[in-house]
Amino acid sequence: MKITSTSNEKVLAWAKLKMKKYRDIENTFLVEGDNLVQEALKKGIVKEIIATYETNFNVPSYVVNEKIMTKLSMMVNPPSIMAVCNYILPDNIEGRVLLLDKLQDPGNLGTIIRSAVAFNFKTIIISDDSVDMYNEKVIRASEGMIFHINLIKSDLESMISLLKNKGYKIIGTDVRSGQSIKNYKAMQYAFVIGNEGNGLAIETKELCDGFVYIPINKTVESLNAAVAASIIMYEANNE
Amino acid sequence: MKITSTSNEKVLAWAKLKMKKYRDIENTFLVEGDNLVQEALKKGIVKEIIATYETNFNVPSYVVNEKIMTKLSMMVNPPSIMAVCNYILPDNIEGRVLLLDKLQDPGNLGTIIRSAVAFNFKTIIISDDSVDMYNEKVIRASEGMIFHINLIKSDLESMISLLKNKGYKIIGTDVRSGQSIKNYKAMQYAFVIGNEGNGLAIETKELCDGFVYIPINKTVESLNAAVAASIIMYEANNE
Repeated sequence: MKITSTSNEKVLAWAKLKMKKYRDIENTFLVEGDNLVQEALKKGIVKEIIATYETNFNVPSYVVNEKIMTKLSMMVNPPSIMAVCNYILPDNIEGRVLLLDKLQDPGNLGTIIRSAVAFNFKTIIISDDSVDMYNEKVIRASEGMIFHINLIKSDLESMISLLKNKGYKIIGTDVRSGQSIKNYKAMQYAFVIGNEGNGLAIETKELCDGFVYIPINKTVESLNAAVAASIIMYEANNE
Repeated sequence: MKITSTSNEKVLAWAKLKMKKYRDIENTFLVEGDNLVQEALKKGIVKEIIATYETNFNVPSYVVNEKIMTKLSMMVNPPSIMAVCNYILPDNIEGRVLLLDKLQDPGNLGTIIRSAVAFNFKTIIISDDSVDMYNEKVIRASEGMIFHINLIKSDLESMISLLKNKGYKIIGTDVRSGQSIKNYKAMQYAFVIGNEGNGLAIETKELCDGFVYIPINKTVESLNAAVAASIIMYEANNE
């Protein structure tokens, strides 16, 4: 179907998906650009294709003009293809697990997702009060890896008790104290990464079975959250 | 001295420092917020203080209103203190060295600077065609660590030949091939990190004495540049 007006009902509904509030109502999100659309198609979650040209995928498709693309895109240079995708359903928890406690920066979350897939982590549990995982910057920074990992957004406390029941040890990260990462190499550890400014919340710390730390020069207060998470996952993978 | 007009000559000159072109003419840059101003003062590079209140530092100081602060600041919430700083002079090259080849993202550069200080790297050499190190986002992402490391912006080719004369081996990063980082632990290695999208330039690759790689799952094309640099520095520090 062809759409030419930026005030078309479909266009207005899609444009609303730029806001978390409406994504959560519709349980759908947008991905921009050929690479991400391809990844979403492989994952089987594409509901609709929006492109400036005729496409030939097995989903409802709309041909739009550049004005409409500009309206829908979050980028300075709008793409020529986008997809409306269904929220990704959480899968069973297995393998290596990373927990994120109040992570705020979308770039950090995307980078952590990318590193998690790189270092064979299977599940990331994101606390309710973290940045939205369907934020366009998260998806972009993940370089499409958001489609290759089990992402669960939930209340951290109940997830930690579920993990403990499954036999996982919960390992917090602490800037100055804790054991060397080298001591935590087995599969049954779940690592918790804290907020960019404040680290782990006290309530979360109390639920941890142990702590890990990365030795750093004392001039530096802490590492960037995505860097810290990546080094921990790199080491855990480096058995 | 008190300034109340946003069109005051001083204010107009400061505002121009938001652009690289004018920073390079004046050899000065702005830092925002109490933490960074303190770090810059310790480093002895502060030329002028701009604040919404009376300060008591041993440098020329200006009291301005919030309107002026908003005009000078790059942030959504302008700070109440800023400093005009002289460009940091490069120091002798010693210790562990990191080279950055066409790095484009200011957040990545700031994060790399922060990790470099954390992992005891003494010098970062930034290629001429990389992002400007005095970009406000670089300074902010570095968390003030830009004042704790020897930063040199230069032509990479001549710096590499200088490093080789000093006895350094130049180690490139490659996604899929090269030796394990574990083989490169000594001090006389200089590691080269490539551009976010394309990795190392061919001309740079040809100048390398060896390559290092970080084992990753094949689903992922590469790691984020700041993550890759940080893991390499973490390992080099981890003797």
